[in-house]
Amino acid sequence: MTPISQYGEFKLIEHITKGFPVFYEGVLKRVGDDAAVVRAEKGSVSVFSTDLLLEGIHFDLAYVPLKHLGYKAVVVNLSDIFAMNAVPYGITVGIAFSNRFPVEAIEELYDGIRAACSRYGIELLGGDTSSSRQGLIISITAYGTAEADDITYRNGAKPNDLVCVTGDLGGAYAGFLVLEREKKTFLANPDLQPELLHYDYVVSRQLKPENKPALLQAFKNLGIKPTAMIDISDGLANELHHLCGQSKCGVTIYADKLPIDYQTVNVAEEFDISPTTFALNGGEDYEMLFTIDIGDFQKIKGMEGVTIIGHVTPEEGALNIVISPTQITPIIAQGFRHF
Amino acid sequence: MTPISQYGEFKLIEHITKGFPVFYEGVLKRVGDDAAVVRAEKGSVSVFSTDLLLEGIHFDLAYVPLKHLGYKAVVVNLSDIFAMNAVPYGITVGIAFSNRFPVEAIEELYDGIRAACSRYGIELLGGDTSSSRQGLIISITAYGTAEADDITYRNGAKPNDLVCVTGDLGGAYAGFLVLEREKKTFLANPDLQPELLHYDYVVSRQLKPENKPALLQAFKNLGIKPTAMIDISDGLANELHHLCGQSKCGVTIYADKLPIDYQTVNVAEEFDISPTTFALNGGEDYEMLFTIDIGDFQKIKGMEGVTIIGHVTPEEGALNIVISPTQITPIIAQGFRHF
Repeated sequence: MTPISQYGEFKLIEHITKGFPVFYEGVLKRVGDDAAVVRAEKGSVSVFSTDLLLEGIHFDLAYVPLKHLGYKAVVVNLSDIFAMNAVPYGITVGIAFSNRFPVEAIEELYDGIRAACSRYGIELLGGDTSSSRQGLIISITAYGTAEADDITYRNGAKPNDLVCVTGDLGGAYAGFLVLEREKKTFLANPDLQPELLHYDYVVSRQLKPENKPALLQAFKNLGIKPTAMIDISDGLANELHHLCGQSKCGVTIYADKLPIDYQTVNVAEEFDISPTTFALNGGEDYEMLFTIDIGDFQKIKGMEGVTIIGHVTPEEGALNIVISPTQITPIIAQGFRHF
Repeated sequence: MTPISQYGEFKLIEHITKGFPVFYEGVLKRVGDDAAVVRAEKGSVSVFSTDLLLEGIHFDLAYVPLKHLGYKAVVVNLSDIFAMNAVPYGITVGIAFSNRFPVEAIEELYDGIRAACSRYGIELLGGDTSSSRQGLIISITAYGTAEADDITYRNGAKPNDLVCVTGDLGGAYAGFLVLEREKKTFLANPDLQPELLHYDYVVSRQLKPENKPALLQAFKNLGIKPTAMIDISDGLANELHHLCGQSKCGVTIYADKLPIDYQTVNVAEEFDISPTTFALNGGEDYEMLFTIDIGDFQKIKGMEGVTIIGHVTPEEGALNIVISPTQITPIIAQGFRHF
């Protein structure tokens, strides 16, 4: 018997999805990108993505309010649709929970789901409800559409493309560390109030991430189509590996270009970890990582909320980060966190 | 705090999905049918349905082989698409499992998923994989298409329509009881071999249900469109209540018309339960329940594998079963089994 740890998540997915039958030429993208892409009306496509969120693995109800959890569960899924340069319009929601949950708790969760739907113009299309002996389980599938020509896959990056990210990185992980610390303090002494005053930004990054619909509009307005795009859910390092793996290229990025909020830097110092490590390996920021043709530099350079962090290189698998003029190190993907 | 049990599953779903925003007129059906329906190309629609399957709630790995489980998980989801009179073409699969699962176990599960895909012309479009501290979790979303005019909802039944079912009923529940009994015998004395020889049909109904794609083709060939249709996942009684509730009608069915296999009858006798109860309240048969206009009687009466079990009545909520000429009783929905 082979332990899962010998494979890791992505090799496992590759392994188990091999040999599945292929029937329809209208299916443009199957397993392996942020979402599946299926031809719809002439010139347009449907885009689907699905995610599982499990109590104890993806969230801790000790400090995640149910309303925030519902909101975040939607945002996480829509993020995959936006990462295809597509516009989400609906979700289906499967939830399972213990019968010890009162109706009011489920209402709170759905208040959060509803708030995210209202915020992003998303309809609740359907779902499934079940009891669980195993904690709260949330399964969401998101549905979107796009013009077929607008879809951005992970595999289109080419040498000399500029590597860009939206927003700032590492904040969600900083928020996670702060919340975990406060939870431990609380468990040790329940009379102490949580100390979150100076951490409002990073805590909100962890508890209430937002999507980037404005980015898609900006691309349209500026006449830019990214050569590749992926959302940053498992940390920049992992996503760079996915993007370069599928595009068969390498990348060089610059540590001093990584956008990091000062609160994230403060938390990194408190925990005696380099802020660059937060930005590279901290997950759950739900920012976008994309590459654009070097010829689009003039268009992108003033774009609000976008930072150019490096460029694509020709050698497949050569992923490097420039720490200082004399220190260049390989970017290591953390790999499989969940198993 | 209000306990979930005070609501029941369907009232709870109604309650929590109230007040969700509605944005798009292309969304033809949201929560409340077997699947969501969204306008696609001119004249055609996309159909989506999602299901959660949890170890300990929906299946017991003590006697369900992983390959069968994978197969059944797909069939259960496709069933909702077929129940819209639509043709499924793809699925996305989210699974979560303990890291104590060896790779070989996951391979077996996916062998079953792949076999169902091959059997029904379904593509694996994507998915999500996670570890679980909480047993095996399978979340599948199924995708289908149909001509908009072909879609059958639950709400179109009208007085005098004929009520029909496919196949036979109660077998999956009979198989479940036999497997549970053998599990207990095995736990009491692991040297005893399971006694399944005379139960092959009902056990296969439980472990390996099949879909009914031929039904849709037959409808097309005969020029029939059901006035309402729903798949029988939670037992005939529950589904009749759903169908009548949405169609605002009643129904009278005849106990002696219910199609029940002789093995199901034998098991019912062994357990000292009426076979009619098996047929009414046993779940997981994944047969189809549908209503057709009385004018289509000539077309339907010789249709293979279809049984007319009664007719639609005008009084909303009046659901009755005729046991004998002198004994007519109301059909009671079991309601919410999972909480």
